[in-house]
Amino acid sequence: MISNKMLTLVQNSSVIRAMFEEGKRLAAIHGAENVYDFSLGNPSVEPPAEVKEAVVSIITEESASLVHGYMSNSGYEDVRDAIAVSINKRFGTGFTHENIVMTVGAAGGLNVILKTLLNAGDEVITFAPFFGEYRNYVNNFDGELVVVAPNTDTFQPNLEEFETRITAKTKAVIVNTPNNPTGVIYSEETIRELAQILEKKQKEFNTVIYLISDEPYRELVYDGVNVPYLTKYYRNTIVGYSYSKSLSLPGERIGYLVIPDEATDAKDMIAAANVANRILGFVNAPSLIQRVVAKCLDSEVDITVYNRNREVLYNRLKEYGYDCVKPEGAFYLFVKTLEADDKAFCAAAKKYNILIVPGSSFGCPGYCRIAYCVDHKTVEGALLGFQKLAKEYLAK
Amino acid sequence: MISNKMLTLVQNSSVIRAMFEEGKRLAAIHGAENVYDFSLGNPSVEPPAEVKEAVVSIITEESASLVHGYMSNSGYEDVRDAIAVSINKRFGTGFTHENIVMTVGAAGGLNVILKTLLNAGDEVITFAPFFGEYRNYVNNFDGELVVVAPNTDTFQPNLEEFETRITAKTKAVIVNTPNNPTGVIYSEETIRELAQILEKKQKEFNTVIYLISDEPYRELVYDGVNVPYLTKYYRNTIVGYSYSKSLSLPGERIGYLVIPDEATDAKDMIAAANVANRILGFVNAPSLIQRVVAKCLDSEVDITVYNRNREVLYNRLKEYGYDCVKPEGAFYLFVKTLEADDKAFCAAAKKYNILIVPGSSFGCPGYCRIAYCVDHKTVEGALLGFQKLAKEYLAK
Repeated sequence: MISNKMLTLVQNSSVIRAMFEEGKRLAAIHGAENVYDFSLGNPSVEPPAEVKEAVVSIITEESASLVHGYMSNSGYEDVRDAIAVSINKRFGTGFTHENIVMTVGAAGGLNVILKTLLNAGDEVITFAPFFGEYRNYVNNFDGELVVVAPNTDTFQPNLEEFETRITAKTKAVIVNTPNNPTGVIYSEETIRELAQILEKKQKEFNTVIYLISDEPYRELVYDGVNVPYLTKYYRNTIVGYSYSKSLSLPGERIGYLVIPDEATDAKDMIAAANVANRILGFVNAPSLIQRVVAKCLDSEVDITVYNRNREVLYNRLKEYGYDCVKPEGAFYLFVKTLEADDKAFCAAAKKYNILIVPGSSFGCPGYCRIAYCVDHKTVEGALLGFQKLAKEYLAK
Repeated sequence: MISNKMLTLVQNSSVIRAMFEEGKRLAAIHGAENVYDFSLGNPSVEPPAEVKEAVVSIITEESASLVHGYMSNSGYEDVRDAIAVSINKRFGTGFTHENIVMTVGAAGGLNVILKTLLNAGDEVITFAPFFGEYRNYVNNFDGELVVVAPNTDTFQPNLEEFETRITAKTKAVIVNTPNNPTGVIYSEETIRELAQILEKKQKEFNTVIYLISDEPYRELVYDGVNVPYLTKYYRNTIVGYSYSKSLSLPGERIGYLVIPDEATDAKDMIAAANVANRILGFVNAPSLIQRVVAKCLDSEVDITVYNRNREVLYNRLKEYGYDCVKPEGAFYLFVKTLEADDKAFCAAAKKYNILIVPGSSFGCPGYCRIAYCVDHKTVEGALLGFQKLAKEYLAK
């Protein structure tokens, strides 16, 4: 009796989430300490202390009807102001609260902006490998996701192919840097080229193409690498942000959209995003947590844990014979599988109680994603398994 | 550049929300104490003390990665268990956590279940007057909302017309009792008749018709009137609940769906609702607040404030010459406007700084909604204006 679309979706239900459930099952059998679950991007690092302090101070000092009540669908004005000021300070932009729409995480934000923009049949381009949910989000509004093939040498976007895939029906392009699942950060040079292509194609087709920058991993960057702020390179940029990773609050569902004034039809988009937030059933981003993040804008999680996992995993896997681009951000390693069938490879890893996700879930078969947002002892515990797994294949 | 659907929606943007913004504007000019804003269902009664206690105890005692981390898309199992036990105790049902899906408020829950059920062109029936967002929610999934005309004598559902409007394409029926905007509670007799009609029509068309019971006002009931629990009267019932009103937490976006085992294809629906929660961008209901409501299942807001407003407004408006069915639940009075054009009537009320919502927003022109979830002094302050407004019309 469920809808045809959902029937298909349930049958192909997210491999990542299925892994998460599988991890819980294996932990119940073998003990959590003997299962090496690298399947989900669930931050292992605690939120900064300021989060707890903010919750307690808000709940004890502010009026309950303010903290838990309705506000504008776009969120509290003071919270949006604080966020705009913080972005401006960091990136030299000129936003006000008008440019900020608080959303139910980045997932909520992406759905809001896609609802705002898409007519049925509109095309949205993204670059493989990509977060698999983009396909569902675009399909929610009867758009077509167009996937540019991966450049597996560097995992920078394949801009030559990109240029050929833009058509008169291209309404938006989604980029995700630092990237899930590769951890790659798009260089300033890449962003400039991408912007130039978009400008050229807008003129060629006399259309407007929005660049949607999905940025949940913006703050998770290693070795001081710069992550360009995309609104400065291309005026029709919309930013989708989330505090899930930057403050380790993934369950709280809190993020925002930035819709700059200089984007084409910005006023309409801002009004429409406000309505979309309402009618999609979000109504508004959760209220208490909106107020909490506004008090934690200068707080950070301790990414040295992730960095240590990154260094150890990357170096040891290379030693064992695996092939991988060293990630500069996020908390994922995207490793070439030792057989062409990435699903078979991930199934083989389960023998060693190692849970990893096939690259085909990200539009990039032949690879697998290792989410290293885990305790360091999970990394240490899994090394022998990774080594044995490599030996199985490389001995052949 | 925004989508055609959104263009229309932005143009017709919710009258209720527009009123809310208008209220803020008038308050800035005249002072909040001189504006009588009855436009929005934003609870005026503080959350029960247990909410604050629960927030503090959870945030100080439970692990941050549990409290703020990801969990199953349907929500924490222990929270869902606690809710199932509480429902079973109150209503003699037999639910487990499997039957409960935590949602981003009732609005999120309705979108999840409609995504789960609807194919394009499927019909969803509701009874006027109705919460105007139902139309948007159904349209989100390309369904058709079919509206049964109001029975303005009692505002009980018009079951004769209902029976004639069910077709082979009817996938669901949405009821809302206690009702927004009338405050009417459907009697057990009404529910039995409604269930009989549904059973008969399921047989006639050899279809399955789900009854979606939208219940944010279940706990706001006066004079001890009984609100039947609908799963006990019709097996294909799905309940959508929200804590927005029962715990005065509308900004927090927390509620749940109940999908009973005895509903046709329950297992598929439960799996699909879990996926729908994810792909619509909710991912999961906000985590901390999930844990909070589980600790407040026996808590109540103080509805004596609403009851006092109800009594005073109802009695005085009757005295002044207004016509209205006395509400038994929720916090709305649905009053016949003193001219046929309800929008003109509500505009006239603004002269007295009274903000009320035209009935046409609820599919019932010729009426207006007064949301009395306000301080009692707002009610007292508005009485003279209501009286003068009545005199304007009745003197003619």
